Amino acid sequence: MIITEEERDAVYKTIFSRRDVRGQFKPDPIPEDVLRRVLQAAHHAPSVGYSQPWDFVVVKSPEVKQRIKDGFNAAHAEAELMFEEGKQGTYRSLKLEGIMESPVGVCITCDSTRNGPVVIGRTAVPEMDQYSSVCAVQNFWLAARAENLGVGWVSIIHNDVLKKALNIPDHIIPIAYLCLGYVSFFHEKPELEKAGWLPRENLDDLIHYDQWKA
Amino acid sequence: MIITEEERDAVYKTIFSRRDVRGQFKPDPIPEDVLRRVLQAAHHAPSVGYSQPWDFVVVKSPEVKQRIKDGFNAAHAEAELMFEEGKQGTYRSLKLEGIMESPVGVCITCDSTRNGPVVIGRTAVPEMDQYSSVCAVQNFWLAARAENLGVGWVSIIHNDVLKKALNIPDHIIPIAYLCLGYVSFFHEKPELEKAGWLPRENLDDLIHYDQWKA
Repeated sequence: MIITEEERDAVYKTIFSRRDVRGQFKPDPIPEDVLRRVLQAAHHAPSVGYSQPWDFVVVKSPEVKQRIKDGFNAAHAEAELMFEEGKQGTYRSLKLEGIMESPVGVCITCDSTRNGPVVIGRTAVPEMDQYSSVCAVQNFWLAARAENLGVGWVSIIHNDVLKKALNIPDHIIPIAYLCLGYVSFFHEKPELEKAGWLPRENLDDLIHYDQWKA
Repeated sequence: MIITEEERDAVYKTIFSRRDVRGQFKPDPIPEDVLRRVLQAAHHAPSVGYSQPWDFVVVKSPEVKQRIKDGFNAAHAEAELMFEEGKQGTYRSLKLEGIMESPVGVCITCDSTRNGPVVIGRTAVPEMDQYSSVCAVQNFWLAARAENLGVGWVSIIHNDVLKKALNIPDHIIPIAYLCLGYVSFFHEKPELEKAGWLPRENLDDLIHYDQWKA
């Protein structure tokens, strides 16, 4: 199956305009068929040995969202103290999540026991099943962007708190809690770049040829 | 920036027709501007706290490829013995890599010290920087597919062997070694599904609402 140049450019447009959304969520509901397409895209991520280790916990209940938000608040307060004093104020001023404002949350997880115990391609690198679930996250994110939906990855929460909030069994690893919703706008650049927190790295500095450059 | 329905469908076409390629690589060289676009797409992945922890080692030297291939061969022989006897024959018969046949290999890595030591969003989940590099892998993969290039992820190799082959410093974690090249064709379905190794999971079984279902 050939991808045309126009189709290719649509993929690049989606990749380059994807953002981590925190402050621009609108409450508008997401139609079920749209959410389904996004989850279907996530389910078509690559997985090690075709193990498909992901599950998707779709969160709409305000009570459940509040538990996630409480977990974020606790981890956020802890985090602030880890930054050097000069950066604590900036850190505090950043809006880092849209848990309550986004209409849907989706937790993507990893079940290392699925289709195991020996999985093709996981024999030398045990993290490969978690990496597979991360590929599902990125498919989800790009499919959402293609649907003009914003996604924000909430990583400032401890896994045990997230598991308790969603009743996730012990042997399952949460990989990402994603806020999903329509947005008032997408920022032109990543917010942390815009805020002067960090610049974009120069791609040439990151490319090595045949051997790592010193 | 609005994504149109046509553009959205191009993204889905790319996501659903992406494959892990092992046996269909053609030796045709990849133009530098095409490779650059694919790397640029990888570089525009989301990263925790905008840390951009990835590097890209582009491998074209046959000698370096041979070292990777030797590493694969050793890890592959080890792996075979881990499967139950009934599956060892099938495992052996599967073609699992195209290291020598693909014109370019790209190792995507993770540098946890970049833009650190404290990174926004990594304070509760230390794996977040590795997950960022995996997002770069999936952007790379989809951009490549949009360029009608095949990608195969070689995970059957030990990280220390890969690091030695590419002279990667101690503190850098290899995330993926990817074979890249034009292909004779893309399989309609994942090869492990086609070979009857495993079926595709039913998406409905993987979706939970508000709480994990028992």
